[in-house]
Amino acid sequence: MREVAIVAAGMTRFGEIWESSLRDLFAEAALEALDAARVDRVDSIYVGCMSAGQFVGQEHLGPLMADEIGLTGVAATHVESACASGGVALRSAFIEVASGMSDLVLAAGVEKMTDGADVTAVLATAADQEKEAYHGITFPGLYAMIARAHMQAKGTTEEDLAWVAVKNHRHGALNPKAQFGRELKLEDVLGSSMVADPLRLLHCSPVTDGAAAVLLCPLELAKKYTDRPVKIRASALATGSMALADRKDPAVLDAVQLSGERAYKMAGVSPADIQVAEVHDCFTIAEICCIEALGLAPPCSGRHAARSGLTALGGKIPVNTSGGLKSKGHPVGATGIAQAIEIFEQLRGEAGARQVKGARLGLAQNMGGSGASSVVHIFEGV
Amino acid sequence: MREVAIVAAGMTRFGEIWESSLRDLFAEAALEALDAARVDRVDSIYVGCMSAGQFVGQEHLGPLMADEIGLTGVAATHVESACASGGVALRSAFIEVASGMSDLVLAAGVEKMTDGADVTAVLATAADQEKEAYHGITFPGLYAMIARAHMQAKGTTEEDLAWVAVKNHRHGALNPKAQFGRELKLEDVLGSSMVADPLRLLHCSPVTDGAAAVLLCPLELAKKYTDRPVKIRASALATGSMALADRKDPAVLDAVQLSGERAYKMAGVSPADIQVAEVHDCFTIAEICCIEALGLAPPCSGRHAARSGLTALGGKIPVNTSGGLKSKGHPVGATGIAQAIEIFEQLRGEAGARQVKGARLGLAQNMGGSGASSVVHIFEGV
Repeated sequence: MREVAIVAAGMTRFGEIWESSLRDLFAEAALEALDAARVDRVDSIYVGCMSAGQFVGQEHLGPLMADEIGLTGVAATHVESACASGGVALRSAFIEVASGMSDLVLAAGVEKMTDGADVTAVLATAADQEKEAYHGITFPGLYAMIARAHMQAKGTTEEDLAWVAVKNHRHGALNPKAQFGRELKLEDVLGSSMVADPLRLLHCSPVTDGAAAVLLCPLELAKKYTDRPVKIRASALATGSMALADRKDPAVLDAVQLSGERAYKMAGVSPADIQVAEVHDCFTIAEICCIEALGLAPPCSGRHAARSGLTALGGKIPVNTSGGLKSKGHPVGATGIAQAIEIFEQLRGEAGARQVKGARLGLAQNMGGSGASSVVHIFEGV
Repeated sequence: MREVAIVAAGMTRFGEIWESSLRDLFAEAALEALDAARVDRVDSIYVGCMSAGQFVGQEHLGPLMADEIGLTGVAATHVESACASGGVALRSAFIEVASGMSDLVLAAGVEKMTDGADVTAVLATAADQEKEAYHGITFPGLYAMIARAHMQAKGTTEEDLAWVAVKNHRHGALNPKAQFGRELKLEDVLGSSMVADPLRLLHCSPVTDGAAAVLLCPLELAKKYTDRPVKIRASALATGSMALADRKDPAVLDAVQLSGERAYKMAGVSPADIQVAEVHDCFTIAEICCIEALGLAPPCSGRHAARSGLTALGGKIPVNTSGGLKSKGHPVGATGIAQAIEIFEQLRGEAGARQVKGARLGLAQNMGGSGASSVVHIFEGV
């Protein structure tokens, strides 16, 4: 396999973007990435998107998006893995470059969520339809059950959960592209409306429009496009049981753990080597489960990480310096690529007020549904 | 890139399969392929499906299907390119094996279309929503415009179109898995109800449930799994303009031509070397356009190919020996894999009454929408 690098990135702001359609969002992010690398052609495009079919009545995103950015003719493929669609698009692009099939591949993610569909019902199609969604449960309910199981098994409290939101909003306030650019106090979170006990409104990531794109090429060609390429040391995807009820322990995200193990092995590194990470905090409890599953916090101590400062900017292993899904926003198909962009910028020393000093090795973890799919990428500044 | 082979296949019958759900269909085809190769584990799975989200309210098909066949944990990815989703799944699997990332990869396609959704409206989301579908046109109308343009430019007649249906139903009558196992007379086609002038009911492929799966591995390991592997000589994907109105000539399918050129180049062969082909006959006119775009019939003479016997069993280049989408049925996500299986069986000498004698080199072409995406694979019996 050839070594692969990211050489450029582009991203819209995240939020309620009423003036841009699905294709507008994609084009803005994609063209920014192509411009940054000063190229007007790629060999192949991957579009990560959960469900433009249900959200805006548009399938067949590969040719649509290639056409939209003036690249009619190139290979273009839509990949979906619910909220991990962006991460899976990045993995597919990585494999295509690594294989030697293509040299320049664009990996992008996009979602237009604010245009009228019943968002909660559409998102619920990422759960097991027959065993879960049909019976009425949606994602806040599923993650509330994960939170309750975590509380019971590991003593996690409502305050522990709230600290994740406080930390990520503090980070997001430093990110000009974040949907919510303001800090939260602990009492704001604890006093917000209950959505699905114990998860309150401010434990949940928002509904967001947005797109993000990165350009990949073989590492040996990377200097043609940028002075500061970022190498992809590992790309790993794993699955777990779709239905929560089928899992041995709902407080443990098996797919996240497995994708992490595979990625660490592929990169030849251990969790202690990671200096900055983006993990999938669709709900506050998810960040706690993910840092435990990835070995970024010791098992059973994930709940202390935000409050203690371990995962805050300035801490030992800053997590979700972008603000995470919680503050930056969560346009589901774009999230995995946006995470990669945060690490890309961190490893290039371009993260501004959010910069983790001297970061050379970073990780991004993106998951789908209640954790049935998880993708981990490990990156290195070169 | 490593050389890649198909070593096993599995496929449900195609038709209205009321007793099987989306996941049942997938599992039947996938497990048949795994059983045929005597394996109980793969490294990665690709699921081609156009829109289980809209058809049956289920996204996130990667982990769902891995879970369903007892392979929870393995990498699994859903890819979509409208009616070319199966072909794109095969291409993704090919790249993953070729790259060295994985050794055993399952490429499958599935669609459950008869379970209640408004099928025509869902399929229309494969057209350009803003420029086409929103204004009320659906696929019979789009292909009717292609047919009219073809008639005007190349003198194609309603009878020429009807002969494609007659030929493919003759082939399909020999295929025990085909949705329609009976022959049609020319007058049956010409006398069937008008759907979108000049396309009548019997010019259109049906609404179908079904699934198909093939197992890929490096060619050098193939003999572990079968005595008769089939090598994938080329895998090429191309896109074209989404909206018909954006094309220079609606009677010419640019993406099909481009995907064909790329595949011939990759395989180092020419159209004249191909001995059996499956092409995307979602409507009769599509087969005529595709054999012209692929060079299987001379330009402007595609319309004579079915009537003259050129593309019939026993002819110089038999096309759609399986019965094609027209007679075998068209569960959209499964079609690209089912085409590959027909060629796989032909090149192994296992096609029974449909066998093309001595076939060693075959082609499968699968397209999405009104031709905005097209995938071509070239296979060789080894």
